[in-house]
Amino acid sequence: MALIVKKFGGSSVANAERVFNVARIITEDYKKGNDVVVVVSAQGDTTDDLIAKAKEINPDSPSKREMDMLLSAGEQISISLLAMAIEKLGFPAVSLLGWQAGFSTNSSYGVARIKKVDSERIRRELDNKRIVIVAGFQGLNKHDDITTLGRGGSDTSAVAIAASMRADVCQIYTDVDGVYTADPRKVPKAIKMDEITYDEMLELATLGAQVLNNRSVEMAKKYGVELEVLSSLDPKPGTIVKEKVKMEKMLIKGVAKDNNVSRISIVGLDDTPGIAFKIFNKLAASKVNVDIILQSVGRDGTKDITFTVTEDQESDALKALDALKDTMSYKSITSDTTISKVSVVGAGMESHPGVAAKMFEALSDAGINIQMISTSEIKISVLIDKSEAERAVVAIHDKFID
Amino acid sequence: MALIVKKFGGSSVANAERVFNVARIITEDYKKGNDVVVVVSAQGDTTDDLIAKAKEINPDSPSKREMDMLLSAGEQISISLLAMAIEKLGFPAVSLLGWQAGFSTNSSYGVARIKKVDSERIRRELDNKRIVIVAGFQGLNKHDDITTLGRGGSDTSAVAIAASMRADVCQIYTDVDGVYTADPRKVPKAIKMDEITYDEMLELATLGAQVLNNRSVEMAKKYGVELEVLSSLDPKPGTIVKEKVKMEKMLIKGVAKDNNVSRISIVGLDDTPGIAFKIFNKLAASKVNVDIILQSVGRDGTKDITFTVTEDQESDALKALDALKDTMSYKSITSDTTISKVSVVGAGMESHPGVAAKMFEALSDAGINIQMISTSEIKISVLIDKSEAERAVVAIHDKFID
Repeated sequence: MALIVKKFGGSSVANAERVFNVARIITEDYKKGNDVVVVVSAQGDTTDDLIAKAKEINPDSPSKREMDMLLSAGEQISISLLAMAIEKLGFPAVSLLGWQAGFSTNSSYGVARIKKVDSERIRRELDNKRIVIVAGFQGLNKHDDITTLGRGGSDTSAVAIAASMRADVCQIYTDVDGVYTADPRKVPKAIKMDEITYDEMLELATLGAQVLNNRSVEMAKKYGVELEVLSSLDPKPGTIVKEKVKMEKMLIKGVAKDNNVSRISIVGLDDTPGIAFKIFNKLAASKVNVDIILQSVGRDGTKDITFTVTEDQESDALKALDALKDTMSYKSITSDTTISKVSVVGAGMESHPGVAAKMFEALSDAGINIQMISTSEIKISVLIDKSEAERAVVAIHDKFID
Repeated sequence: MALIVKKFGGSSVANAERVFNVARIITEDYKKGNDVVVVVSAQGDTTDDLIAKAKEINPDSPSKREMDMLLSAGEQISISLLAMAIEKLGFPAVSLLGWQAGFSTNSSYGVARIKKVDSERIRRELDNKRIVIVAGFQGLNKHDDITTLGRGGSDTSAVAIAASMRADVCQIYTDVDGVYTADPRKVPKAIKMDEITYDEMLELATLGAQVLNNRSVEMAKKYGVELEVLSSLDPKPGTIVKEKVKMEKMLIKGVAKDNNVSRISIVGLDDTPGIAFKIFNKLAASKVNVDIILQSVGRDGTKDITFTVTEDQESDALKALDALKDTMSYKSITSDTTISKVSVVGAGMESHPGVAAKMFEALSDAGINIQMISTSEIKISVLIDKSEAERAVVAIHDKFID
């Protein structure tokens, strides 16, 4: 007998038929004698519909506290319907809101962080042989007000419960049947992996493979929660995410592209001490997340600093730099969103110096020009022209995985 | 400076435009320096839509606990939208769910009774100069589970807050601008009353004038909460409901009809001691509410017992009587739903013996046959043929109010 946490996204419970499909998956595990805790998101378009209602009232800036009050109604609907469906199939179930399930968060409405899960109530319901259905994405702050964890927060809710209750596995059901070496819709030769490490999954998630929410993988890594990514429509084993995996032949675990990139360059910068600190400290204070940074020596003793941010942070970054304009001397600042970041990820590559060369060879063979390069222990990323990104992913993938 | 509790029904907040209309009514009172607590129902058809979702999952008997979890999401949506609208108008507001507003109930899901309102949180928000928006219709039981008070429960929520906080007035906004002597859509000469007593309002509510929920009037009477019934679309003084009202010329306060009546007769019953007790005790045990009872001596030393119940309880009543068939001797049991109950109500009538005669005269003049009569201190009801009910209301109304 095991304790299993399962998480289903909004599309998995979008209508009555799908709710029953999910209910059957859940009861299969319950019938085998397992304790089952299920985390559910709001049905299909519910969250978007509620956001539309709020925008009708206040298109610009509805109160974040009230937005959380509003949006958390979405999961309240889905958990009660799923509990009803399980009961209709003849099994005992109980739905719990975030606060009933013991989720304490900080007070950052809309992007709250889980501080603690007091799983006493969940434990009691399991001891009473009930299947427990928990509203994902939501918790309660110290003012007794409802908070939401932000988009994708239901994954984090599930991992938090699994960590708090030392569950045997946390199964994240999605519309794909596991983690692939590349997006299988774009790269026909993409391979589903049986296992992948937390670090590899984190790199893949950051790089645009939107299978798992990053915060949930970080939390799973921190508390050693074994994750499984699998499909709610095609019931078969998915991909296990854990600390250490069996050594495999495959050198790399995934090729991913990220189109949400803006490159900003400060050209002809006077090389005074501490100038880089000044720039990136200001960007951090403006809450701009900088990804790749490149510094190069320019002509005339000046230098160029180039970095990337997500497209939606481009204007914040430019504003932050503009605020510095009287305290530094430079020729020009440019920004460019016509680029993509393409990356290969794999824990094996750190001991294989040939990986970078092989990647660059693949791009060269395909006639694709590399604009910037960034490497970490388990990842190599290149910036290339956006229009060539998909072709680059296929070329690199085919080079490594055959 | 006063403490004002306002209650708005679902149609008053059905869309963004109406939400802003309600927000403006609320802020008018706030601007005058009053403390304002607002109770809101779910928007328009939300509750019906949620019930439809549940019926898709389980058409027969979804868990009552889960139904309450589901339905209470409706007010969660309306309170947050109303708070956003008030903030958009430039005033501070905070929405509170039933449990946040301190509503403790018993555990009868779907028809819960309020046990206590701990208004500490509401008080704190008012002291911080916020307009407080409370979800009507819902509370929390001792298991920390959400309960609902049943249809019309938002009126009761409002009165409970007003009672708990000793509010100066509890204003119930509806789609009519007050309490009339008869349904103004049916009786053109109907008059809006400035004031009416709790007892009169209770009789009118019981008799089918669906302006106020009966439980809320009972609670207002018990705790001496002054009610005002008024329109959210036509802002002018409505009808005050309180313990004692100024003596008015009008002898009666209202004429109402109730079509939801079934008459059940047990004919030719052997007159054994305790037979009436046995019958009505059995009906009470089956949770059948009996309204009018008439007992008459039949032929051959037998008697007839006739009583009325609501139409939806007819089958329960007949089932209860059937269970007694071996323990009593009678000729036949008949039931009839082709009747209506028409009543006049007025606290003044108890000291005016002519009221009954005047009512019967009106019916006689109109050629309407009276089938049964029942009287209380402030009410006279007659059963007549359903097809003649509307004509009867107009005839009686015209006789008394001119």
